[in-house]
Amino acid sequence: MKIALIQMNVVDDTATNIEHAHNLALEASKNGADLIVLPEIFTCIYDSANFPKKAFNRESEHYKAIQDIAKSTGKYLIAGSIPEKAEGSKVYNTSFVFNTKGEELAYHRKTHLFDIDVKGGQYFKESDTLSAGNRPTLFETPFAKIGLIICYDIRFPEFSRMLVEEGAELIVVPAAFNMTTGPAHWELSFRARALDNQVYYAGCAPARNENSSYVSYANSIVTSPWGEVIAKAGTKEEILYADIDLEYEKQIRNELPLLKHRRKDIY
Amino acid sequence: MKIALIQMNVVDDTATNIEHAHNLALEASKNGADLIVLPEIFTCIYDSANFPKKAFNRESEHYKAIQDIAKSTGKYLIAGSIPEKAEGSKVYNTSFVFNTKGEELAYHRKTHLFDIDVKGGQYFKESDTLSAGNRPTLFETPFAKIGLIICYDIRFPEFSRMLVEEGAELIVVPAAFNMTTGPAHWELSFRARALDNQVYYAGCAPARNENSSYVSYANSIVTSPWGEVIAKAGTKEEILYADIDLEYEKQIRNELPLLKHRRKDIY
Repeated sequence: MKIALIQMNVVDDTATNIEHAHNLALEASKNGADLIVLPEIFTCIYDSANFPKKAFNRESEHYKAIQDIAKSTGKYLIAGSIPEKAEGSKVYNTSFVFNTKGEELAYHRKTHLFDIDVKGGQYFKESDTLSAGNRPTLFETPFAKIGLIICYDIRFPEFSRMLVEEGAELIVVPAAFNMTTGPAHWELSFRARALDNQVYYAGCAPARNENSSYVSYANSIVTSPWGEVIAKAGTKEEILYADIDLEYEKQIRNELPLLKHRRKDIY
Repeated sequence: MKIALIQMNVVDDTATNIEHAHNLALEASKNGADLIVLPEIFTCIYDSANFPKKAFNRESEHYKAIQDIAKSTGKYLIAGSIPEKAEGSKVYNTSFVFNTKGEELAYHRKTHLFDIDVKGGQYFKESDTLSAGNRPTLFETPFAKIGLIICYDIRFPEFSRMLVEEGAELIVVPAAFNMTTGPAHWELSFRARALDNQVYYAGCAPARNENSSYVSYANSIVTSPWGEVIAKAGTKEEILYADIDLEYEKQIRNELPLLKHRRKDIY
């Protein structure tokens, strides 16, 4: 199974971003990707105040334009995430998943909202404008059982564990760490979660834009069940490819049976 | 609070090892350590077949000799671990903790037994000769609430989480990773567990002996609540010192409130 992570530049116009994602997805498809992943909030600038203004829902033309990416490439698509307009004035940070015909297969609403205030570093309060989802998300493809979480969700070992309990073989994470948490925790989190849970992790970030109010760390990444980095992007726009080898995953689980050695009688 | 990790050479004679530990502890004490930590299985060669032969219990002169280390230094002592002879033919991998008077304050029996069989790498089966403990271990000192686990116990995020739920501010891990898992997972595990749980971790290993049947990776380590390595030993015998700053820990928990952001309504 070949996965393509589209680390794209994001501007503030929704239609422009979706069209740009479409073009890059076509390139990934030509290069043999089975599963195409877009970054967190790929439809507008990542900014709390911006989310309600740029939010849309399944009735929108933008949603249909995203479906079309899956349809025209004929590939499975994890459509990063968008600010999703929902009941009343609610907005979620939501990732939609489409099959090769463009039919919605699953959706995940970011469950842990990111509020941070580091002395001399990053300040951001997602919960000012966003509502939180209430469940982990798992779906099946012909290639693998895939768990789906968004960015800050990866910080919580319990949440990934739930996905692995339910059979996840690969966990995909549209994400946008920043210039404080990125250098300190991005690679560490993806390596450790993969190792602890003996699954592949794939993190897809927007390309870095130094002029943005929230600067994405970028560095899209794929980590293996042995805790290694098997692919990593730079900071600019690029498509990152990686092979997901479920035979290797089985081998690791057999050689060092962490999941089997858990003491569920105690926890 | 100053912690000293005694990364010592271990031979196969129990009395010799305890005396050697005693001398190094006196040096650590002179250098201002408040808490002294010894490595996993510091009383004999680390080998499954060896554990039953070298096991002893609280009635043994060896136990009293370990108590004397705490008494004569006047420091808190986490006495690495020993093969502990228990009911019937049972043997545990046990860490005893002593206060400054040499009184036993707590003990931890390794709860996750290490069985591994990596293709072209490490084979080891602890469960051949050892029995497993059944609880996490926490105790109070005037300096900090301290969680205590042994080596392979660190692999399981649930187990550390239990300690943090109960208020652990520092988690101490007598441990002996090997030359397969050490380079791949030692630093990664200590950094990630510290970051996820926003506590300090201290891992104390035996010095490396290339002629041993089981070669310790050594590299004793202390990691911070921000996921940084703040002290790290080499491979030879040495005493590693680190300052544990609980004010910094509070600051991190305040700036990036991971523990508060957990969605316990879901897990």
